[in-house]
Amino acid sequence: MAEAIRRRELLFGAAGMTLLGAASSARAAEPTRKLGYAIVGLGTYGADIIMPRFADCKYSRLTALVSGDPAKARALAAKYGVPERSIYNYSNFDPIRNNPDVDIVYVVLPNSMHAEYVIRAAQAGKHVLCEKPMANSVAECEAMIAACRKAKVKLMIGYRSQFEPYNVHAMKLRREGAIGKVRYVQSEHGWNQGDPSKWRLKKALAGGGSLMDIGIYSVQALRYLSGEEPVAVTARESTDRKDPRFTEVEDLINWTFEFPSGALGGGLTSYSSHHNHSRITGDKGWLDMDPSTAYQGNRIRLRRLWDPEQEVTAPPGPSANQFAGQLDHMAQCVLTGAEPIVPGEEGLRDMRIIEAIYRSAAEGRTISLA
Amino acid sequence: MAEAIRRRELLFGAAGMTLLGAASSARAAEPTRKLGYAIVGLGTYGADIIMPRFADCKYSRLTALVSGDPAKARALAAKYGVPERSIYNYSNFDPIRNNPDVDIVYVVLPNSMHAEYVIRAAQAGKHVLCEKPMANSVAECEAMIAACRKAKVKLMIGYRSQFEPYNVHAMKLRREGAIGKVRYVQSEHGWNQGDPSKWRLKKALAGGGSLMDIGIYSVQALRYLSGEEPVAVTARESTDRKDPRFTEVEDLINWTFEFPSGALGGGLTSYSSHHNHSRITGDKGWLDMDPSTAYQGNRIRLRRLWDPEQEVTAPPGPSANQFAGQLDHMAQCVLTGAEPIVPGEEGLRDMRIIEAIYRSAAEGRTISLA
Repeated sequence: MAEAIRRRELLFGAAGMTLLGAASSARAAEPTRKLGYAIVGLGTYGADIIMPRFADCKYSRLTALVSGDPAKARALAAKYGVPERSIYNYSNFDPIRNNPDVDIVYVVLPNSMHAEYVIRAAQAGKHVLCEKPMANSVAECEAMIAACRKAKVKLMIGYRSQFEPYNVHAMKLRREGAIGKVRYVQSEHGWNQGDPSKWRLKKALAGGGSLMDIGIYSVQALRYLSGEEPVAVTARESTDRKDPRFTEVEDLINWTFEFPSGALGGGLTSYSSHHNHSRITGDKGWLDMDPSTAYQGNRIRLRRLWDPEQEVTAPPGPSANQFAGQLDHMAQCVLTGAEPIVPGEEGLRDMRIIEAIYRSAAEGRTISLA
Repeated sequence: MAEAIRRRELLFGAAGMTLLGAASSARAAEPTRKLGYAIVGLGTYGADIIMPRFADCKYSRLTALVSGDPAKARALAAKYGVPERSIYNYSNFDPIRNNPDVDIVYVVLPNSMHAEYVIRAAQAGKHVLCEKPMANSVAECEAMIAACRKAKVKLMIGYRSQFEPYNVHAMKLRREGAIGKVRYVQSEHGWNQGDPSKWRLKKALAGGGSLMDIGIYSVQALRYLSGEEPVAVTARESTDRKDPRFTEVEDLINWTFEFPSGALGGGLTSYSSHHNHSRITGDKGWLDMDPSTAYQGNRIRLRRLWDPEQEVTAPPGPSANQFAGQLDHMAQCVLTGAEPIVPGEEGLRDMRIIEAIYRSAAEGRTISLA
């Protein structure tokens, strides 16, 4: 049990330091060129959230697009200066191996397509950044890790919160004992779904509902805020199957994690209400994040017993924002040979937990994760 | 199921209105005298929290003391102007029936003594206000209700939060649709215990640990904030039995309530960390109480989608504070013949839920409350 804590401390505890350390050493040896990214999947997240952030990057640039929508790809290519020859579709993707402008493939497709495109990118000899959830099953995650290992390329999962200054600072405060010994962690993530036809509400494409899409932020936050790995989970689901949005995937899940130290964790995921809140309570106080993992505007309130509550400003990270931090971290890992702080194994770990949450809810019993 | 919601709406939804209404009608027919209270049990809560609040009451006054500590009783009697003849101990308590200055007996003893003193007070023909938890078991609660019914006296449980303006206002905002349809309610209550010898850590006296003592606030808040009755509970406990504080009673319990509407509730109770926080989230926003049920200084933050978060000031209640509100509500009920908004049946309801939480944690399965 103590070993599990230490392993976790190593992974997450070292996260901030590794990140800052990598940034410093990379700065010490300034790369002669920015590494080139191909974005696979031009949905809202890829096109509207990720692409504009290359402008904030020090070590990354957008050099190729992969899409099933030629008109959209051409428009975005024009906007971001991607040459015509670096536009791919899903049929002619594999020759990307011959494109020297592409170092890293960033997979931002619906979840069900992650495994296929990560494996094809690896086989094309490209390093891979893959959005979370890593895939739709533990088996797919294992195949993805094996493919990248075989191809000797790096694999990183897009856990942006790990590059977000307030989350990094919250981990640091907890490690430094600001709230004493952790007793309870709570994290709620959700959003109220609209259009029932979207891919996120189709089981075959999304692999599941709120838990896969947004609840994974709570799974992550409960782990990195506590600094521990859950050894058991007990979950309850509530889904109105008569609601046209939820004929295939779940709405609400509430779960309890048991941690080796004896601390408990409470997680909530929802597709019928908006949530973005985490709180960690120790025997010496609490730290509240509200919002917790937003694109911007995250906040920390710290209450140390018996001092007044205080608003904490996190020191800026090495990057302009969490998105640039994530892109540049992967680029730096490729440049320096370091392992990403959120490698494929981290995505696999979450997927094992997510499968256990589903199983607990379905079978009405506690599932061991030890 | 809809009936369960309506029943709950009636009870809690009507609470604010009943309270305000009773205050108005009582004002219309100003009582000619304040009703007299005997306080049974002169521990911290009775002596330091309750007694000073009679000064804020319109319909209540302190007229008698019952204690096993004659010196303490005499000192407090002198401080509050209680005559020597109205000081009782546990042996000579029953003749209180002949004391015309005592209308209501307020039982503020360790939990294990509640049933005995409520029943003896009822048999002495006095109305009874009893601290929460009502007793140590459902069986005791039923016996207390039966005794008060037989003696034709009123029985009320000391749920002070129901008289606290921020909690009353939160219920009103939820009923008025400020956050839309409720999807998730969360409530954490706890305090870090010190001295292992205190009665609250002895199973025979306290009936249990954190859940009985402070977790009951979360049980209540989840019910009155959602406006629903749970139909099932799933709970996990974590207690370090090697900690000298926890050889007899539990430390942490985290649980999930399932409500008839499909909403879920998450509750947390702790004896190793401080918590006082509740949040209710609907499909149109959330309402956060931090602290949620403190003696004073409770706060509401309201976030209506897509408006900015706002701090809400609750309108003042009919009384100077929640303690005076509780004392005067009972006095008004006696004066007007109305039923208390938190009668013995309310304490019994919580005790049934608490027993189910313990059973779920012990047996590792979901317990039905339907």
